[in-house]
Amino acid sequence: MPVLASVASQPLQDGDQLAAVDIGSNSFHMVVARYTLGQLRVVDRLRETVRMADGLDGKGGLSTAARQRGLECLARFGQRIRDIPALRVRALATNTVRQLASPQSFLVPAETALGHAIEVVSGREEARLIYLGVAHAQPPKPGHQRLVIDIGGGSTEFIIGRGFEQIERESLQVGCIASTRRFFPGGKLSKKRWKEALTEVGAEFQQFAGIYRALGWQEALGSSGTHKAIGEICAAMKLTKGAITAEALPQVRDRLLMAANISAIELPGLSSDRRPIIAGGVLVLEAAFEALGLQRLMVSKAAMREGILYDMLGRGSDNDPRDASVASLTQRYGVDESQTARVEGTAMRMFEQVADDWKLDDDDARQLGWAARLHEIGLAVAHSQYHVHGAYLIEHSDIAGFSRQEQQVLAALVRTQRRGIPKSAFDALPDRLLLSARRKAALLRLSVLLHRAHEAGPIPRLELQASEDSLQLIISRKWIDARPLLRADLIGEPQDMAGLNVVFRPFVD
Amino acid sequence: MPVLASVASQPLQDGDQLAAVDIGSNSFHMVVARYTLGQLRVVDRLRETVRMADGLDGKGGLSTAARQRGLECLARFGQRIRDIPALRVRALATNTVRQLASPQSFLVPAETALGHAIEVVSGREEARLIYLGVAHAQPPKPGHQRLVIDIGGGSTEFIIGRGFEQIERESLQVGCIASTRRFFPGGKLSKKRWKEALTEVGAEFQQFAGIYRALGWQEALGSSGTHKAIGEICAAMKLTKGAITAEALPQVRDRLLMAANISAIELPGLSSDRRPIIAGGVLVLEAAFEALGLQRLMVSKAAMREGILYDMLGRGSDNDPRDASVASLTQRYGVDESQTARVEGTAMRMFEQVADDWKLDDDDARQLGWAARLHEIGLAVAHSQYHVHGAYLIEHSDIAGFSRQEQQVLAALVRTQRRGIPKSAFDALPDRLLLSARRKAALLRLSVLLHRAHEAGPIPRLELQASEDSLQLIISRKWIDARPLLRADLIGEPQDMAGLNVVFRPFVD
Repeated sequence: MPVLASVASQPLQDGDQLAAVDIGSNSFHMVVARYTLGQLRVVDRLRETVRMADGLDGKGGLSTAARQRGLECLARFGQRIRDIPALRVRALATNTVRQLASPQSFLVPAETALGHAIEVVSGREEARLIYLGVAHAQPPKPGHQRLVIDIGGGSTEFIIGRGFEQIERESLQVGCIASTRRFFPGGKLSKKRWKEALTEVGAEFQQFAGIYRALGWQEALGSSGTHKAIGEICAAMKLTKGAITAEALPQVRDRLLMAANISAIELPGLSSDRRPIIAGGVLVLEAAFEALGLQRLMVSKAAMREGILYDMLGRGSDNDPRDASVASLTQRYGVDESQTARVEGTAMRMFEQVADDWKLDDDDARQLGWAARLHEIGLAVAHSQYHVHGAYLIEHSDIAGFSRQEQQVLAALVRTQRRGIPKSAFDALPDRLLLSARRKAALLRLSVLLHRAHEAGPIPRLELQASEDSLQLIISRKWIDARPLLRADLIGEPQDMAGLNVVFRPFVD
Repeated sequence: MPVLASVASQPLQDGDQLAAVDIGSNSFHMVVARYTLGQLRVVDRLRETVRMADGLDGKGGLSTAARQRGLECLARFGQRIRDIPALRVRALATNTVRQLASPQSFLVPAETALGHAIEVVSGREEARLIYLGVAHAQPPKPGHQRLVIDIGGGSTEFIIGRGFEQIERESLQVGCIASTRRFFPGGKLSKKRWKEALTEVGAEFQQFAGIYRALGWQEALGSSGTHKAIGEICAAMKLTKGAITAEALPQVRDRLLMAANISAIELPGLSSDRRPIIAGGVLVLEAAFEALGLQRLMVSKAAMREGILYDMLGRGSDNDPRDASVASLTQRYGVDESQTARVEGTAMRMFEQVADDWKLDDDDARQLGWAARLHEIGLAVAHSQYHVHGAYLIEHSDIAGFSRQEQQVLAALVRTQRRGIPKSAFDALPDRLLLSARRKAALLRLSVLLHRAHEAGPIPRLELQASEDSLQLIISRKWIDARPLLRADLIGEPQDMAGLNVVFRPFVD
């Protein structure tokens, strides 16, 4: 089938390069890997201390200096991966970009600088990728449960898993930069301040700590630069051989607090780069040790960037983690799968006919399929306005494997499947996704309409002709004449469906 | 326990009167019943043609004339039930009030006129009550499935059930007044118009008709004034003995369409009262016959008003339908019931201590309990902002047995359980519910806070002292000193929790 050529999968070939970019609150990381004999081999690593979180003003704004540091770093990263195809690069932004009131004002120039799309992920998706990265780098012992902690610049992730399976994931708005700024303004340190800060951070951790302690673990790993730095301090102080323990950590803290100001901190093994934010890092870790009753934490070299790489291997494959997430949503909300299968089938049939003309690719095909599977989840809330409820659930849920933008695309498709199409429906999407989102929305909407009567049989003939800004639907006259209600519906559709001119024309059988 | 006196149940006594008021789009109904030997015996029925839907302007406004007709009718109803205690009267408004942009501007004077609270119910809740009324008036044959159709002034309800159990409920925005106005403006009638209108209404019914036909039924009943009128026409035309059949209905329609204008309609057995809206009624019923393949429909004398009465018997009893609805929500959203049981237990313990001072009653106790059981449902969406997601689900879900206001109270309690309390959180509530809602919100919030650590053990001593606008929480010093995080949380609570001044004071054990 030639029409399928444009949506055919593009499996990895030996020698292909993949790149993962982690746009973090403290540092930006990039890792480039080569796919060889079914394995990923890291060929390049870049890390720059950008300290984006330092530029947050607490009201969703970002300082010009921080923004500039970020863009310059991304431009340098971009040079390295200029020749890697777009679908082999995944760049994810985390907590600092999540905090921005208008993330697009940073993301648009950032994508230009990097030369690749950038997606924002939720804290729990970040946690999932971290666990994945650590699990691949240090395969867990069979049957052992593992706790992974990642203290970032703006947020801290806690994950419990067994093998490659994750059991619990949490992401808290407590990071080493944010905590340093919040609890030690002007860099001032004191035992009293420390104790108060520890109480406050502890309160944040209290909420999930009980559940985590009840689940338990046989080994604990820390995966961030903060852990690496504290592990090196423990080793340099000859307290451990690199692990962080319940005995060593208070000694590190006491040594740290010998300084009255952050600028005066003297700790063996501490780099000057890390000094400005080590206080917040030790604080968060001490609170975590207390809340979770931790005894010993090993340091892992892997982190989210490796998780992104391994996640890319799954994406688009038979084991795409997003398929499982969509299935668990349809189960939770008791979706009528016979109906969604009909809608998905017709949507994909139409997709194949227009994919070339509309430049829609594999990813678009998958998104259209997921939107079709999810389009009725809002019925579990109420029949009235169920498209609105479905869009709310998709936009706000933690859905493993999806970036925020992907969820926003799905939400827009589900929102516009029926009834009026508000101008704001696509507002959340970056410009580069707008055209393809509108086109997918038109396909889903048509498919939902064609199956509105919940008839079991397939639609006999269905031809679509797409041009830049219009779609012509040509359908068997005999079939449509037997369905006057559907005919009336098709004629009554808004002409500017999702911004496209949609024309319906029956042909003579 | 004397503190429990104010929240003790008040079971019905022999001779007690109950009243149900149905504030419909076409007519207002009131039925008064006496509770005798465990049965309800109707002692009075009032019906007035108010035609509220005629006053809708399509933009959420209501004409002064329609408003005035409604208020005058309610004042007359109010005289009859002046001496019935508030908790034995339930007045429900349906589609026309649902359409109002600001329902309070009608409801506030309406409550004054009636002398009782008025609640708004969703279309599917209306459907539930209709089925309940019909099932009690004409008990279904064992094992038979029954279809009930109610064509109101502004909406039409379709219910399939077996015995007293309901299987499917739908409510569509198609009623006899709305359809008459929409399809026959100026009262003009013609075969062509009729056919077009039938296609449009048919399209509305198509969506659920397949599911209903697949479920099937052994008997069909129509429960509204429209059915009664059409049944009487069929009998007067000697087509049937009062039933409405697939053969008779087109003959009624053809006879109706002999008139070129609604004012000229001549149908045997038609009252002049019903003439202005009979065209829309026959139209909707013909569309329903076609969509569902109906052959024969019996007319039931019972309707929502009887359903309200029987529902009142269940409310507050061991078989309160709302308990089952709350349980099914907690199941769908996978709530951790050990935690919600702790929160509910402490909330009820606090409730008992302040109920007298704060004039909180049985209903308040139940609502606080439901809010406690539901307070974590938003976690199924996402951890971040789960109180907001939970409030969204509670506000928008079709929850059997609850009025809209009850859902809005629960949503406000769940919304304000943690984090900042937005000024708008209680905006949706009518003034008369505001104070008690804020007080219940303070109790839920305190209870959630006290159990934030998910500890299994009970809280040893807990004393509450409530005054008009403040609450003092007195707690064991020994216990709280062992929980510095909780102590910090309690001190950090906003002083004006839900508009109340909340003071926390530990006592010496």
